[in-house]
Amino acid sequence: MALIVQKYGGSSLHDGDAIQNVARRIARTQNQGDKVVATVSAMGNTTDELISLARSVSTEPHPRELDLLLSTGELVSCTLLAMGLRSMGLNAVSLSGAQAGIHTNAKFGNAKIQSVEPTRIIQDLDNGNIVIVAGFQGITDDMNVTTLGRGASDITAVALSAALNADRCEIYTDVAGIYTADPRLVPKAQKLNEVGFEEMLELASYGAKMAPRSIELGMVYDIPILVASSLNDEPGTLIHRGAEMSNSIGEIRNRVRGVATDINVTKITLLGIPNRPGSEADVFEPLADADISVDVIVQSTVVDGHTDLTFTIKGTDKERALAVMTKISQEIGACGVTAADGLAKVSIVGSGMQDAPGYASRMFRALADAEISIDVITTSEIRITCVIDACDIKKAAQAIHSAFLVESTE
Amino acid sequence: MALIVQKYGGSSLHDGDAIQNVARRIARTQNQGDKVVATVSAMGNTTDELISLARSVSTEPHPRELDLLLSTGELVSCTLLAMGLRSMGLNAVSLSGAQAGIHTNAKFGNAKIQSVEPTRIIQDLDNGNIVIVAGFQGITDDMNVTTLGRGASDITAVALSAALNADRCEIYTDVAGIYTADPRLVPKAQKLNEVGFEEMLELASYGAKMAPRSIELGMVYDIPILVASSLNDEPGTLIHRGAEMSNSIGEIRNRVRGVATDINVTKITLLGIPNRPGSEADVFEPLADADISVDVIVQSTVVDGHTDLTFTIKGTDKERALAVMTKISQEIGACGVTAADGLAKVSIVGSGMQDAPGYASRMFRALADAEISIDVITTSEIRITCVIDACDIKKAAQAIHSAFLVESTE
Repeated sequence: MALIVQKYGGSSLHDGDAIQNVARRIARTQNQGDKVVATVSAMGNTTDELISLARSVSTEPHPRELDLLLSTGELVSCTLLAMGLRSMGLNAVSLSGAQAGIHTNAKFGNAKIQSVEPTRIIQDLDNGNIVIVAGFQGITDDMNVTTLGRGASDITAVALSAALNADRCEIYTDVAGIYTADPRLVPKAQKLNEVGFEEMLELASYGAKMAPRSIELGMVYDIPILVASSLNDEPGTLIHRGAEMSNSIGEIRNRVRGVATDINVTKITLLGIPNRPGSEADVFEPLADADISVDVIVQSTVVDGHTDLTFTIKGTDKERALAVMTKISQEIGACGVTAADGLAKVSIVGSGMQDAPGYASRMFRALADAEISIDVITTSEIRITCVIDACDIKKAAQAIHSAFLVESTE
Repeated sequence: MALIVQKYGGSSLHDGDAIQNVARRIARTQNQGDKVVATVSAMGNTTDELISLARSVSTEPHPRELDLLLSTGELVSCTLLAMGLRSMGLNAVSLSGAQAGIHTNAKFGNAKIQSVEPTRIIQDLDNGNIVIVAGFQGITDDMNVTTLGRGASDITAVALSAALNADRCEIYTDVAGIYTADPRLVPKAQKLNEVGFEEMLELASYGAKMAPRSIELGMVYDIPILVASSLNDEPGTLIHRGAEMSNSIGEIRNRVRGVATDINVTKITLLGIPNRPGSEADVFEPLADADISVDVIVQSTVVDGHTDLTFTIKGTDKERALAVMTKISQEIGACGVTAADGLAKVSIVGSGMQDAPGYASRMFRALADAEISIDVITTSEIRITCVIDACDIKKAAQAIHSAFLVESTE
């Protein structure tokens, strides 16, 4: 008898019929002889609706209050799912994050799970119940309800899998799995049967939909994660440690696992920074304090004791980042700040790239053949990223996909 | 510095503007130098909407799951109210029933408060916060969320007042207070400035809107309860122990406090019951087991070893009560069961009536002059009730009101 943790996203739970469909899928898993713990997101657009309610009473809703408010969305979907299962004659119990023993720090809106004490879940499982846990939420030591950030029900699912030592974590969503590229940009993209954790981490960080922290957790605790559709029985994509190894025996063409894209990119450049130890920290600490995520960072070679520093951020953070940087620029004696938006990132990702040469040059050639200018280049062990004009993203993704990946003939 | 517990009903919190209006009222109370704990119902029709969601996945939603679902309605309104107060620059904290220390038994859907442990509320008050508590909910010793029954935020308010030893409990609603009769039936009804607990209990049981259990609690703990409108600054009605005493010095006309009405009444009669000890218990125990509330009970004199037993129930319970009674009738050897619906109750209520004669005859005369037939009559120490045809309720209420009460000249 295996223990399976499943997660169902909001688009799989948008109304009563959809919830009953999910209940039938869970029932089928139990009928196969497995124990099931399922965690859920809020129904459809509930979270956005609650945020707009909060905005109707406060221009800047207090974070603690907002978290308690938002946590109700997942309570609604998990109780409805438990009712749906019970109306099919099955034993099911819904639990809030607090009841499920999900303890977090007190960073409201973006709390981190610190521990999971699954005593109650285990007890309810042992009593023959399917256990439904409200995703996206936890509780602090002071009994304050927290939320884990947007899309964080994935994190709940993987953390529960780790705490319960589950045999598998299954993430059900409205897409069939992980693709070699975003199918909206690259129609010839193919669904992957498997992908490694690190590869998935790079893919997720660069556009594909799964909370990066959930993949890190899966990697640390070595929990195989299946990503599949809640609407059909297609096999989906298995994220697991074995995928990296199986990759290395393939031909060079297959060492690139996928093409990641991100179109909401703004570039900020600090010009003429006097070069001294600590100047980088002076720049990035205030950004971190302002909760602005910095992505690509490139610093040019020092010339005449001065250097230029470029980094990318989300387009929505532009105004706040510029305000912070204008202040910092004066404090550290830089020459000035420039910003450019309307940019995009395109990356190739694959663990097989790290000990095989020639990927970068082939990627740059593919872009050159498509007459696309490259702005910034950055690499990690298993990823090569180019920042380009957002207008070119479709053409770029297709050119790179053709150069590295087997394409769908549909 | 007084401690005031306030309660705001769902119609006072139906949207963002209404919530901000309530926030301003709470702020004003605090500005007067008082500490404030406020408890809230769910916004507008939220509870009904959640119930219909539950019905979309289950014809008979599981009570434990339904309670956790319904509890979200009050979490939404209490967090929004706290946000509204914070956006005005005030310190405010919202608490779920569990966080507020409201412990109940495990009777889901209709749980009873067993204790209130207000440690957290007191701590938040001492830290200078306005404390907003989700009404209508509590938690069991097993950490399961319960609800206290429809309209039970009143109970939360009075229970909190008792536990905190509050100076006053204020119930804000969409009406201006307690009236001498339902103004929709009797346009000349007047708002009462004060009313006694027992009188209010009879008025509430017979139609006026306040959970009877909340008034019982107020009576036991001697907590003055103000019922007033959340939309204006009219003084409202004070429910307090002193009202009974002040009543007895008034003229006879004023010993009747009000006219209570209830139009959703069904009468069930068991005919020809063999008279033996225990036959009444045989009838009413199965009704209690079926959770059917019985109101007026009248048993006629025994003739030839047989008697007839008549009782009234809510119209909505008719089919279930008839099914139970048909079975019981056979078991106890009665001649048969009859039911009549389309009935109404009209009552006069007043603590001054108990030691003054003549009220019953004046009430019957008023009904006779209005050419209204009386079906069943029943009395308590401070109430006289007649069951009449529902079609006559308006005419009856007006006739009785004119006979006993000072009328509005508007």
